[in-house]
Amino acid sequence: MSYQAPQKDIRFALEMGELPAVCTLPGFEDCNMELAEAITEEAAKFAEGVLDPINRAGDKGNTWSDYAVTTVPGFKDAFTQFCESGWMGLKCPADFGGQGLPALLSMATEEMWNAANMSFALAPMLSTGAIEALEHNGSDEIKATYLPKLISGEWAGTMNLTEPNAGSDLAQVRTKAVPQADGSYLITGQKIFITWGEHDMTDNIVHLVLARLPDAPAGVKGISLFVVPKFLVNADGSLGARNDVRCVSIEHKLGIHGSPTAVMSFGDQGGAVGYLVGELNKGLAHMFVMMNNARMGVAVQGMAISERAYQQAVEYARDRIQCRELGSRDPASVAIIRHPDVRRMLMTMRAQIEAQRLLTYAAGAALDRAARHPVPEEKARQQALINFLIPIVKGWNTEQSVEITSLGVQVHGGMGFIEETGAAQHFRDARITSIYEGTTGIQAMDLIGRKLAMENGATAKALLEETKAVAGKLAGLGSDFAVFKANLEAGIVQAGQCVDFILARFASEPQLPAAGSVPFLKLMGILLGGWQMARAALVAAERRADPAADVAFYEAKLVTARFYGEHILSQTSGLAAAIIQGGESVLALADDAF
Amino acid sequence: MSYQAPQKDIRFALEMGELPAVCTLPGFEDCNMELAEAITEEAAKFAEGVLDPINRAGDKGNTWSDYAVTTVPGFKDAFTQFCESGWMGLKCPADFGGQGLPALLSMATEEMWNAANMSFALAPMLSTGAIEALEHNGSDEIKATYLPKLISGEWAGTMNLTEPNAGSDLAQVRTKAVPQADGSYLITGQKIFITWGEHDMTDNIVHLVLARLPDAPAGVKGISLFVVPKFLVNADGSLGARNDVRCVSIEHKLGIHGSPTAVMSFGDQGGAVGYLVGELNKGLAHMFVMMNNARMGVAVQGMAISERAYQQAVEYARDRIQCRELGSRDPASVAIIRHPDVRRMLMTMRAQIEAQRLLTYAAGAALDRAARHPVPEEKARQQALINFLIPIVKGWNTEQSVEITSLGVQVHGGMGFIEETGAAQHFRDARITSIYEGTTGIQAMDLIGRKLAMENGATAKALLEETKAVAGKLAGLGSDFAVFKANLEAGIVQAGQCVDFILARFASEPQLPAAGSVPFLKLMGILLGGWQMARAALVAAERRADPAADVAFYEAKLVTARFYGEHILSQTSGLAAAIIQGGESVLALADDAF
Repeated sequence: MSYQAPQKDIRFALEMGELPAVCTLPGFEDCNMELAEAITEEAAKFAEGVLDPINRAGDKGNTWSDYAVTTVPGFKDAFTQFCESGWMGLKCPADFGGQGLPALLSMATEEMWNAANMSFALAPMLSTGAIEALEHNGSDEIKATYLPKLISGEWAGTMNLTEPNAGSDLAQVRTKAVPQADGSYLITGQKIFITWGEHDMTDNIVHLVLARLPDAPAGVKGISLFVVPKFLVNADGSLGARNDVRCVSIEHKLGIHGSPTAVMSFGDQGGAVGYLVGELNKGLAHMFVMMNNARMGVAVQGMAISERAYQQAVEYARDRIQCRELGSRDPASVAIIRHPDVRRMLMTMRAQIEAQRLLTYAAGAALDRAARHPVPEEKARQQALINFLIPIVKGWNTEQSVEITSLGVQVHGGMGFIEETGAAQHFRDARITSIYEGTTGIQAMDLIGRKLAMENGATAKALLEETKAVAGKLAGLGSDFAVFKANLEAGIVQAGQCVDFILARFASEPQLPAAGSVPFLKLMGILLGGWQMARAALVAAERRADPAADVAFYEAKLVTARFYGEHILSQTSGLAAAIIQGGESVLALADDAF
Repeated sequence: MSYQAPQKDIRFALEMGELPAVCTLPGFEDCNMELAEAITEEAAKFAEGVLDPINRAGDKGNTWSDYAVTTVPGFKDAFTQFCESGWMGLKCPADFGGQGLPALLSMATEEMWNAANMSFALAPMLSTGAIEALEHNGSDEIKATYLPKLISGEWAGTMNLTEPNAGSDLAQVRTKAVPQADGSYLITGQKIFITWGEHDMTDNIVHLVLARLPDAPAGVKGISLFVVPKFLVNADGSLGARNDVRCVSIEHKLGIHGSPTAVMSFGDQGGAVGYLVGELNKGLAHMFVMMNNARMGVAVQGMAISERAYQQAVEYARDRIQCRELGSRDPASVAIIRHPDVRRMLMTMRAQIEAQRLLTYAAGAALDRAARHPVPEEKARQQALINFLIPIVKGWNTEQSVEITSLGVQVHGGMGFIEETGAAQHFRDARITSIYEGTTGIQAMDLIGRKLAMENGATAKALLEETKAVAGKLAGLGSDFAVFKANLEAGIVQAGQCVDFILARFASEPQLPAAGSVPFLKLMGILLGGWQMARAALVAAERRADPAADVAFYEAKLVTARFYGEHILSQTSGLAAAIIQGGESVLALADDAF
C-alpha cells in the first residue's frame, strides 16, 4: 500500500506548535503558514512520488563487495533529486547554501521522509547532523570546505562514534589520532554500526569521527572530534586522493535493510587523514550537537514509522471483509474496521501517533526558540525545555513505535506475518529506533540525572503546572471529557510524586530512581502527550463551531483526544506505583540467580 | 547462545500444578514426580542436544520446488530421533502406541521443544492435534489406519482450516466435498497458511480438512471434517497412490522460517480422496478438539520463546562490560547486568514468564482433570475452568511474548538488531503466536462471549474468590509483600467490576464490552498470573525454612514474585478503567475518519 502524507494533521500540528510565533523570531521573518503549507505540499509529493515507491525495494538490502556498497536501485537517483529539490538544506544556514527555515517546519518534512522510506531518510538525517556539528564547531576553513557540499548534497555526512567496546560508554573510545606536522592528524581504529558509512550516492563521504590523542586524558575528557573525508579535498575544492578509511563489511540486520550499516576501518595503510573540529579533548561536547539533532531525528522517525504502519492497517481494515457485525441481525460479513477490537487497535495507534506528533513538534518549536529567541532568559528557558523533552520524545516515541507497528501487523491477522504484505517491514524497521542514538535506558538516565536532578526538577515542575492549567480548561468540554480530565489531573499528581521521589533519592541512592527511570520516561511521555491532546481538543472544540470549519476533521480530533484520555492516560497510575514502590524488587535478585 | 532447559523451574511448576494429584486420576497411576523428573531430564537433553543446535539453521528457511518442500538440513534427522525416542506419543493413548501420560507432564516437554526450536516444535504440535481429533471423532477404521502411524511419527498430521476468504470466519469455508459411491469424498479447494503442510520428514502426511458438501447448510453448520492423506493407504496399511493434494507454494514470512507454511491445493486433477471424520456438518465441533489443543500449544509456545529470549538476554547481560556502576566510586566498567534498567528489563521478562508458566501448567492440570476425573461435577467444573483459561493463556502469553522478546533485543543494544546475534530471531518467531490459532481479538471475544457471558461469569467469579483467599495469606509474608497484597486485592475488585460490566452489557449492547475485550483478557492474565505468583511465594517462603532446602532458588522465587506484584500487577487499574470507561471512544470515530 502507498503512503499518503497526512498533510492536514501535520499542518494542525505546526499550528499547535506555534509555527506562526516561531516565524517572528529573528531570521525567520520570511517564513509563515502559507509558505509552510506550500512546502509541506511539495514535500508530500516528493515523499509519496519518489521515496515511497522505492521503500519495498530497499528492504531487499544493499550489497557490499571489495570495500564498496552498491545501494538498492533507485536510491541514488532519489537522493540526487532530493538534493536538487533543496530538501537537504531546508533548515541549514543560508550562508552556505541552505534555506535557513525553522527546525519546526523542517520536522514536518522529516516526518514525511521517514514515513515514506525510513532507510532512505537516514542518509539526510546523518548529513544534517554532520552539518550542524561543523557549523557550530568547525573552523572557517573547514566550514568553507565541507558545508556547501554537504548542504547541496553533493557529499554526505556520517557519525562515527561506536566501537566494539564503546557503545553506550563513549569513555572507552580507543580510535587514535596522531598529530602531524601540517596540523592534520592520522586516524587509526575501527568503528562499528556506522549508518550510511559507505555508499555510492555521493562523490564524497564526510565522516565525523571521535578519537583520542596518544597523550589524551582517559575517559570522555580525552575525546576529540575529527572530520575524515573519504576522498581528500584539494585546495580548489576538487577531490584528491582516496583517504585511508574503508568499509570492511556491512551488517545483516533485522530491518532498515535499505540503509547500509557499516564497519569502518581507519588507517589500515598507515592512517586516515583527519582534521580537528573544535577544541582538543572537547569532542564529546561538540558531538552532542550532532547527537541531539540525531535524537530528535529518531524521535520523529519513531512517530513517522508508526504513522506509516497505521495507514497500512487502516487500508487493510477497510478492505478486508470477515465475520458479521457484532450484535447485528444482518448475516452479511463486514469490513473488519467495523469490529470493536480492530477499532481499538487502530485508535490505540492513531491516538498515540497524534499525541507524539504534537509533543515532538512542540519540542521542534523549542529548538528554534532556543536557537533564536532574542531574550536571553527565554532562550535559556527554551534550551532547558528542549533538553528535558529530547529524551522523552526520543524514548517514548520509539518504544511505542514497536508496540504500534506490532498492532499494525496484528490488524492484518495472518497476512501481517507474510513479508509481501509490508506490515512486517515497518515492525522490523521500527525496532532499531529505541536502540540507536542512545537506548531508551540511556535516554531515561539522561532524563532523571542530567535533566531532572541537575536543575532540581525546575522544567518538569513548570511543565506540570502548564499541564494543570490546560487540564482545568477541559471542564468546558463537558461530560465526554470528564474521564480525560480526571485521568490527566491524577497523572499530574502522580508525576509530581515521581519527580519528588527521584529528586529525594538521586544523590544518596541513585540506583533506586534509576530502576524506575524508563517507567518514568514513559509516564512523562504519556502525560505530556495528554497535555498536548488536551490542548488539541480545546482548539478543535472551538474551531468546530466555526460555520466554515472542516467539522469532520475537528470531530475526529475530539474523539481521538478522548480515546487518548481514557485508554492511554489511564496507564500513568500503574507506572507511578512501580516507580515509587518498585525500586527494591528490581535490584534485589542476586546476579547469579538470573 | 545455547538453550538450557530450566529444569528446576519446570519441576516447581509441575508441583505447583499439582502433578502428584493429577497422577492419582484413573489411568495415570503409573505416573509420579520421580517419573516426571526422569522424563523432564531426558527431554532437556533432547531439547538442548538435538533441537537447539539446528534452530539457527532453521531460520535460513526451507525450499520449495515442484510441489515439494525440502526442509532445512538436520530437521528430518531430528524428527526421526524425536519419534524414535517416543516423544511424539507422550500423552497419546496407549492403545495406539502412545504412553498415556498426563497432558500436564507433556506440557513440560512441549515447553522445551518450543524454547529450543519453535519451528521444529510446530510439527509435533500439529500431529498431536490431528491425533486428538481422530481419537475423539474418527471411526474405528480411521483410528486403526492413522493413529499408530501418527503416534509413532512415521506420518505427520496437519490442520487445514483457513482459506483466502475464510480466516477468522470459518463460516466462509468453500472447499467442497462430494460424496462418492464407495463412501469416500472427493475434495476440491484451496487452503492457505497450512503449517508443515508439506515437507520431507515423514513418508506420509495426514491432512485434516474442513470442507462442505454441495447441499450442506450455509455457515458453520454446514462444515464437515475429512481426513485426506497425501498418499492413499492400502488395506494392509502400506502406502498407495499419490492423492490429488499438492503444495503449490510456501510463504515468505517474518519468522518461524524453519517451519514451512504451505498453500495447499486439493483436487487440481479432479478431487482429492477424503474420508469423513465424525458426523456430517459437525466438522467445526470436531475441529474444536484440535483447535483447543493447538491453542494450548501456542500458549506454551509464547511462554517458551519468551524463556529462550530471557536466557539469551541474561547471558549477554553477564558478558557485556559497559559503563561504570551507578553510584559507585570505582571507575571500572561493569557487566551491564549491574545496571538498574537492565535488571528491570530482565526482571520484567523473568517475572512474566514465571507467572505464565504457573498459570499455563495449572490449565494443563485442568485438561487432565476434565478428561479423567471420576466425579462428574468436578469433571464439568474442570472443563469450565479449562474453557475459561484457554483464551487467557493463549492471548496473554502470546501478546506478552512480543514484548518480552522485544526486551530481549533491547538488552543487547545495537547487537540485538544484528541477525547473527540470534535475539532478533526470537522476536520475529514470537510475532506469529498472537495471530495463529485465533488472534488475540478472537480469543478475547471467545472469553467474554462463549466463556464469560454464557455461564454468567460463574468460573470467573470462582477464580476471583480463590485468588482472594490466596491474597489474604500474603499477609504472612510481611511488609515486603504488602504492595503485592494491596495490588492483588485491588486487582480482584477491579476484575470483578469488569466482569459485572461485561455481563450487564453483553446481551443488550455487545459492542461496548467487546471494545474492551482484549484489555479484559490481559487484565485476567495479569491477575491470574498474580494469583499463581502469590501461591508460589507462599510455598517458597515455607520451603526456604527447611534446612535442606535450596535456599537461593526459593529466595529468587520470592524476589521474582515481589517484582511481579509491584511492576506487573500494578497495571490492572489502568486496564480496568479503560474497559469500563473507554468503550464509547473506541467506537465513536466515523469509519471514513480513520
